[in-house]
Amino acid sequence: MGNITLEQARKVIDAALKKSEELGVKMNIAVVDSGTNLVAFNKMDDAWLGSIDISQKKARTARYFNMNTGEIGKLSQPGGSLYNIEHSNNGLITFPGGVLIKDGNGTILGAIGVSGSTVEDDHAVATSGANAL
Amino acid sequence: MGNITLEQARKVIDAALKKSEELGVKMNIAVVDSGTNLVAFNKMDDAWLGSIDISQKKARTARYFNMNTGEIGKLSQPGGSLYNIEHSNNGLITFPGGVLIKDGNGTILGAIGVSGSTVEDDHAVATSGANAL
Amino acid sequence: MGNITLEQARKVIDAALKKSEELGVKMNIAVVDSGTNLVAFNKMDDAWLGSIDISQKKARTARYFNMNTGEIGKLSQPGGSLYNIEHSNNGLITFPGGVLIKDGNGTILGAIGVSGSTVEDDHAVATSGANAL
Amino acid sequence: MGNITLEQARKVIDAALKKSEELGVKMNIAVVDSGTNLVAFNKMDDAWLGSIDISQKKARTARYFNMNTGEIGKLSQPGGSLYNIEHSNNGLITFPGGVLIKDGNGTILGAIGVSGSTVEDDHAVATSGANAL
Repeated sequence: MGNITLEQARKVIDAALKKSEELGVKMNIAVVDSGTNLVAFNKMDDAWLGSIDISQKKARTARYFNMNTGEIGKLSQPGGSLYNIEHSNNGLITFPGGVLIKDGNGTILGAIGVSGSTVEDDHAVATSGANAL
Repeated sequence: MGNITLEQARKVIDAALKKSEELGVKMNIAVVDSGTNLVAFNKMDDAWLGSIDISQKKARTARYFNMNTGEIGKLSQPGGSLYNIEHSNNGLITFPGGVLIKDGNGTILGAIGVSGSTVEDDHAVATSGANAL
Repeated sequence: MGNITLEQARKVIDAALKKSEELGVKMNIAVVDSGTNLVAFNKMDDAWLGSIDISQKKARTARYFNMNTGEIGKLSQPGGSLYNIEHSNNGLITFPGGVLIKDGNGTILGAIGVSGSTVEDDHAVATSGANAL
Repeated sequence: MGNITLEQARKVIDAALKKSEELGVKMNIAVVDSGTNLVAFNKMDDAWLGSIDISQKKARTARYFNMNTGEIGKLSQPGGSLYNIEHSNNGLITFPGGVLIKDGNGTILGAIGVSGSTVEDDHAVATSGANAL
């Protein structure tokens, strides 16, 4: 297990900001370490206020279960094996936009959560951020 | 971004009360500013106690994502792209009754949330309130 | 036990607003019914954001124990008989500014909580509000 | 009332980081807007995990009452006029380290909260950050 540094987290956020600007979207971007603790956060001007919390919950959710948030959401539907898992951990967000951050060896360093647009955009921006390392 | 004044918020609430009386319904009516902070609230006599909180959550939810609450509810259904988003922000309410408040130039000043009857009535009363400015 | 009506609560708030203007202070004013449920709330322009919650907690605290909030604060000091009672009920506020609202016969109808200035001003405004009935 | 931009918030955080390095301390640094919503956050490597939350609560507390957090702490001591005010607003932090951020005209834009060392260091770093604009 590694742990993301502030320098790395800022690099992740800057890559996510750059991608957001390319897409013309206003995002909230959160980076947590491998202990799910917040390391860095940026809210773009006029980004949704409700996405401040969602971006952090997405980052934590990805690291809680070591998978992209959207994968968990497939299992948490009515009738699914993890139905309503969102009630745990003071609230999970299980739709796309939370992505693990790994180093070049595949070691998990933390996770990024992005919220502010469609889930497709959120996921694309999060992936751009995670790939910056 | 502007911010609703108390004078404006009271005008919004009075218009919502008038509409509620026309419809013969008992409502809880909340107005938040553009930072989602409560500015004014009125509970009509015999309105549901459980709607005190719901009206405030509706107002906040509308401002959190800059859209009517019912729009979010369409996306948060099982299988939808925002399934279970209600777990964020200490609880969202995503059925109709939360409406943005804008000035004549379209600048967001805050939001109104109404709860106490059918969602159709709640939305109609909220809209009457929002249109009072 | 009685219960304050919206018409009465609005009269209480208007009296409190008038007193606030006389004192030149910016207040948050909350009125709860005899069940501690919020009936009416007004935040004056530029009043402290942190006092939105405090005014409501003061109103509830007064009604929880049927006494002015400042009386409880005398007993909740270190070594006092109610030390740290503030941890109950999702947070009490036990300094002045919460006052019971009674009708002409002394029947409790609810309570008013005021926050935004010194505790002396808060208590004076709350008393003006409570005396409006 | 204004609202801090992300560009301004990043400038505030960078100035606070620079001061932290000069002092040889590991800080958590949070910036909120005038509505108390989180705009930017940085956790220095090896900074206390418990200070992630404290830094955010300090920033919010400063803006809630438009004063440095240490000022409130003077009044919230046993026997003080605001004893146990910390129970409001989901938890306040009332020792030094939270400072308002204003523009050149004195307009409030938001607040910075710093936690990770002595309260003297926390306050010094917060002040350096706030003065960057």
